[in-house]
Amino acid sequence: MTIIDGKQTAADIKSEIAREVEERVAAGKRRPHLAAILVGHDGGSETYVANKVKACEECGFKSTLIRFESTDEAPLDPKELMDTIAKLNEDEDVDGFIVQLPLPKHIDEQAVIEAVRPEKDVDGFHPVNVGKQSIGLPCFHSATPAGIVELLKRYEIPTRGKKVVIVGRSNIVGKPLAAMLMQKGYPGDATVTVCHSATENLAEVCREADILVAALGRPGFITADMVKDGATVIDVGTTRVPDATRKSGFRLRGDVDYENAAPKCSFITPVPGGVGPMTICSLMQNTLQAAKSKD
Amino acid sequence: MTIIDGKQTAADIKSEIAREVEERVAAGKRRPHLAAILVGHDGGSETYVANKVKACEECGFKSTLIRFESTDEAPLDPKELMDTIAKLNEDEDVDGFIVQLPLPKHIDEQAVIEAVRPEKDVDGFHPVNVGKQSIGLPCFHSATPAGIVELLKRYEIPTRGKKVVIVGRSNIVGKPLAAMLMQKGYPGDATVTVCHSATENLAEVCREADILVAALGRPGFITADMVKDGATVIDVGTTRVPDATRKSGFRLRGDVDYENAAPKCSFITPVPGGVGPMTICSLMQNTLQAAKSKD
Repeated sequence: MTIIDGKQTAADIKSEIAREVEERVAAGKRRPHLAAILVGHDGGSETYVANKVKACEECGFKSTLIRFESTDEAPLDPKELMDTIAKLNEDEDVDGFIVQLPLPKHIDEQAVIEAVRPEKDVDGFHPVNVGKQSIGLPCFHSATPAGIVELLKRYEIPTRGKKVVIVGRSNIVGKPLAAMLMQKGYPGDATVTVCHSATENLAEVCREADILVAALGRPGFITADMVKDGATVIDVGTTRVPDATRKSGFRLRGDVDYENAAPKCSFITPVPGGVGPMTICSLMQNTLQAAKSKD
Repeated sequence: MTIIDGKQTAADIKSEIAREVEERVAAGKRRPHLAAILVGHDGGSETYVANKVKACEECGFKSTLIRFESTDEAPLDPKELMDTIAKLNEDEDVDGFIVQLPLPKHIDEQAVIEAVRPEKDVDGFHPVNVGKQSIGLPCFHSATPAGIVELLKRYEIPTRGKKVVIVGRSNIVGKPLAAMLMQKGYPGDATVTVCHSATENLAEVCREADILVAALGRPGFITADMVKDGATVIDVGTTRVPDATRKSGFRLRGDVDYENAAPKCSFITPVPGGVGPMTICSLMQNTLQAAKSKD
């Protein structure tokens, strides 16, 4: 059984990116520039954005963080957010930018996603990028699925003709990952099944998977009996569960009962340190790609 | 065993559309207007476009057919095609338009698809519509998958939690149909598997399907032993095979060995007269939707 080390893989990729950036800078080119918009003070979002800024430093990128306050008493005017997006769309110094989700409930998230110019949508959330990904055209791939595919590639896990079962049909993980793994070529050509809350005989479907991806956000939901011997298990879950022994008061738990499932697997991602670090890595890859597209 | 009558269902839908159009006209609104561009003289394309024009008449739509000649000796200048698309994009009298595929090899098909304004893309081929369909947002659904979903609905075939196996991962049938059937609600909530040329143990995967969709374009490829007892079988194949007994010299054959598979099915679509007529129907529904979006 091999534990897939997402942390180390992410570190490797960031080094590769940093090397490429320094070569570009030495050749007189600009540093890639990622901007992030953060609204309010959601705990998870604060951490994610801080990690993205840190990753930019590691990659030699320029980064800009734009913060908006928003409370129930003084909610952010959506127009203010939209104006900032319009400015970033036009700003030639910004290669790509993201609006950290979730947004406060009074803001129309889909309208925000569609306001980002597709050429700067390094999160890969704009319908144009989602559509191009499905069709198999060059585009910004959604960050988490791209990170998973990168792990499969770096660990040389075969996908051609293999049964991939994805549990969870979200727009940011399940659906785009299915689209990527059914494309022609490697890592693709897989026989992909997408499961969800309405699936009948879920355990049975999961047991057929050569590669099982858990992306439903329910800690420990995938138990050992749902895993085929020798399967590769990719755990996308990162739910905060209370843990009094930690300074933060919580720890991250995956969707897989790791302790019992791991011995059956040929490969498995831990939580934390599996898929999580790869997501930010994909964002860095997309930003570098955005910068290079201007060459 | 019930034979799904696509021809009758399509006729019913066209009557419903025609009734709605007459009500709109009586209320002082314009007739929906569909334009079609046809390049060259591909036999299949000629038939499809003629059928689309006829369907427009049946629905009370205005229709415009724009023809371009293109031969190996005198190939059409792609700029001329693009200029026409630009004009149709701007023409307020045209609600929706299509460019009949395939195009001659010297024309970049994807560039043509992306030149059509998404609001007029009644074929549902533009990446914006593909992406919105995947996300589950309102959009123009790709015509053939929308026709299949309409048949499932009209024949009240349950999809929730059911195993759907789609053989074929094309951008106009397999992938968009998968996206539609995995969405929340009816007809969706299915456990969808997409198979293709690289799938291992294809027969075995097919035999698990409650709903089996054959969309690979290989006549008779799906044999009776690949069909579970009581399954619903949807045959999207329409390959022209030589037939000396016909005036045309050919007949249409589906991807399913109908004669032997049908007795095992609870529902099955014949070829012709199954999915085929529904595809044009979806195009009419999309055009009506385009017209209504301007109300």
